Amino acid sequence: MQNKTFHFTLSSQDGKARAGEIVTAHGNIQTPVFMPVGTRATVKTLTQHQLLELDPAIILGNTYHLYLRPGHELIERVGDGLHGFMAWPRAILTDSGGYQIFSLSDLNKISDEGVKFQSHIDGSFHMITPERSMEIQRALGSDIVMAFDQCPPLPSTPEALEVAVDRTLLWANRCCQVKLKPHQALFGIIQGGLNLDLRHRCMEALLKLPFAGFALGGLSVGEKNQEMVDFLNSFVEHMPKDRPRYLMGVGTPLDIIHGVRSGLDMFDCVLPTRNARNGQAITKGGPLSIKREEFKEDRRPIDPLCHCQVCKVHSRAYIRHLFMVNEYTAGTLLTYHNIHFYLQMMRDIRLSIQEKRFDDYCQEFYKSYICTP
Amino acid sequence: MQNKTFHFTLSSQDGKARAGEIVTAHGNIQTPVFMPVGTRATVKTLTQHQLLELDPAIILGNTYHLYLRPGHELIERVGDGLHGFMAWPRAILTDSGGYQIFSLSDLNKISDEGVKFQSHIDGSFHMITPERSMEIQRALGSDIVMAFDQCPPLPSTPEALEVAVDRTLLWANRCCQVKLKPHQALFGIIQGGLNLDLRHRCMEALLKLPFAGFALGGLSVGEKNQEMVDFLNSFVEHMPKDRPRYLMGVGTPLDIIHGVRSGLDMFDCVLPTRNARNGQAITKGGPLSIKREEFKEDRRPIDPLCHCQVCKVHSRAYIRHLFMVNEYTAGTLLTYHNIHFYLQMMRDIRLSIQEKRFDDYCQEFYKSYICTP
Repeated sequence: MQNKTFHFTLSSQDGKARAGEIVTAHGNIQTPVFMPVGTRATVKTLTQHQLLELDPAIILGNTYHLYLRPGHELIERVGDGLHGFMAWPRAILTDSGGYQIFSLSDLNKISDEGVKFQSHIDGSFHMITPERSMEIQRALGSDIVMAFDQCPPLPSTPEALEVAVDRTLLWANRCCQVKLKPHQALFGIIQGGLNLDLRHRCMEALLKLPFAGFALGGLSVGEKNQEMVDFLNSFVEHMPKDRPRYLMGVGTPLDIIHGVRSGLDMFDCVLPTRNARNGQAITKGGPLSIKREEFKEDRRPIDPLCHCQVCKVHSRAYIRHLFMVNEYTAGTLLTYHNIHFYLQMMRDIRLSIQEKRFDDYCQEFYKSYICTP
Repeated sequence: MQNKTFHFTLSSQDGKARAGEIVTAHGNIQTPVFMPVGTRATVKTLTQHQLLELDPAIILGNTYHLYLRPGHELIERVGDGLHGFMAWPRAILTDSGGYQIFSLSDLNKISDEGVKFQSHIDGSFHMITPERSMEIQRALGSDIVMAFDQCPPLPSTPEALEVAVDRTLLWANRCCQVKLKPHQALFGIIQGGLNLDLRHRCMEALLKLPFAGFALGGLSVGEKNQEMVDFLNSFVEHMPKDRPRYLMGVGTPLDIIHGVRSGLDMFDCVLPTRNARNGQAITKGGPLSIKREEFKEDRRPIDPLCHCQVCKVHSRAYIRHLFMVNEYTAGTLLTYHNIHFYLQMMRDIRLSIQEKRFDDYCQEFYKSYICTP
């Protein structure tokens, strides 16, 4: 491994669920962990001061967005990397840029060399190769760097999945050739869709490379939720035990609980932040659409069981009012609550694993968390 | 006076500038004071938690907006008034609604009875009379209630100004007949444009009524800045010394300093909040448009002389980036800084009056505060 600081220790296990600690140059991360998404060097609607109150150990930055604006070179010149640029003292993980090139940019053309694409902002032409992705993430200075991979949507043909795995492996090798900063750790990404054999082949090949952790990519990209859950139940336990296991871009509170049950350690998702801006609060009783008429005069907090700053002082009626008149603060208050919900859930999950009562935790969670369609 | 709690004490004077204290049921207010504007039960882009960090003693709510959405009756039912509804423990002043009916609504028709208008939101028809304005503000439960007045734009014909003064006086009498809540104090509004005789006539008549304070309305509504300054220099010293003097809706830092020099105690303005959302920071060196190319890689804080939370950690380059990519947090950070600037300026002004060096304060302020066009 290239990195001297970074290491992972498993401290307890309950069934397949694991609790542990990742040590980074920007602080220690208790796992299982949820990483709030800070796409363009900010977790949307929150200040870093508010984020520190919420106390996540690690957040995620998006390489594609930061590369386009303001540019990784500017971030390195101004802030000596993303930590300094956005004034975030804790750990940061950056994705490789690949997923967003495929989903956001125009005219992307994939070859073994890399991906050619047009910016979704100004139509300018760009080429990202595995080497270029590493170079950008090196400039960003994230603590965890993701290998550049090809992430096909689901369903894809078996041939397309096969091609994506081969290219992901080719690129993984090239990513490992690039020297990162001393504090940076590189994670490999396992592709292969819902095909167990293909996933195993991909993982076996990646295991020969010096990755500090392994991620599952290409999930929650079009398949049924139950298909993902079944896949995780069959596959995750075979991933290396001594390194962090990261499920990329997933998911709902239930997805995360399923993920932890199957043995995963790390999660990220835009759900708590994006849904907050659309008026959806995540509560112990399930998701709650605050704009609904029934909350017009509701004096209760968003979640009567929540201890966050927002639930301590504000009524549903007040937050609904802010949404109905399109006040910025509406999104901020729900984002604050939702991030608090996710982080508190992870704290509760960790404790229940340490105390060998994770199954009870899950049963209790399922009982109260009602998703009405 | 109807109110038992509310009182005003003058503690020092330096030239015409005054320092004092207003006691309210929701805390004491050191004057001269700036009141951040919280139009629709929130100071735009900030949470109440952030606002408490910034530490204003009083904020302003807009009766017109709150009457339309969510409605004063809902605010009373849900929160027993605006303090409870928005979870703001300190003092609140509400305007009468008149100014915004004139400036925002359609088809407004003024008679001695009151103002008929159509909502700017849904076109619904409404009628606000002096009695209705008092009733709404009583439900809102603000600590300082403003009399319902007629505010003509400038320039207006002498006849129009005369009519507005007569109607303002008629309405002032009717406002005083309405019983407010025990903690509420009612302020009268002096109209009369730039005509000193008319202003004096208006004030003399209002002085016969039991107002707890007096406001100057109808300024910064189209006249030249120097005309307003000259008017304040001639008029304010004649206002009653034993009651707070409030200049409504004004203004820039320079306007406020001029206002204090002429003997005024209270100010409110959307400038620090609205301009923040458009990318303008207020600094000791003058206004600064953060979006300008020159700040692209500027590592300095917005205002190197500022001690606010934002200036302590963030560079101009970072905040410019947030504006260029339209992140919500951009407006929040500049609003936070701008409100801090205004409140700190008021603290500095008060201290300089108490220490009889207000003139030196002004000279120093003028020297560094450069407004480039």
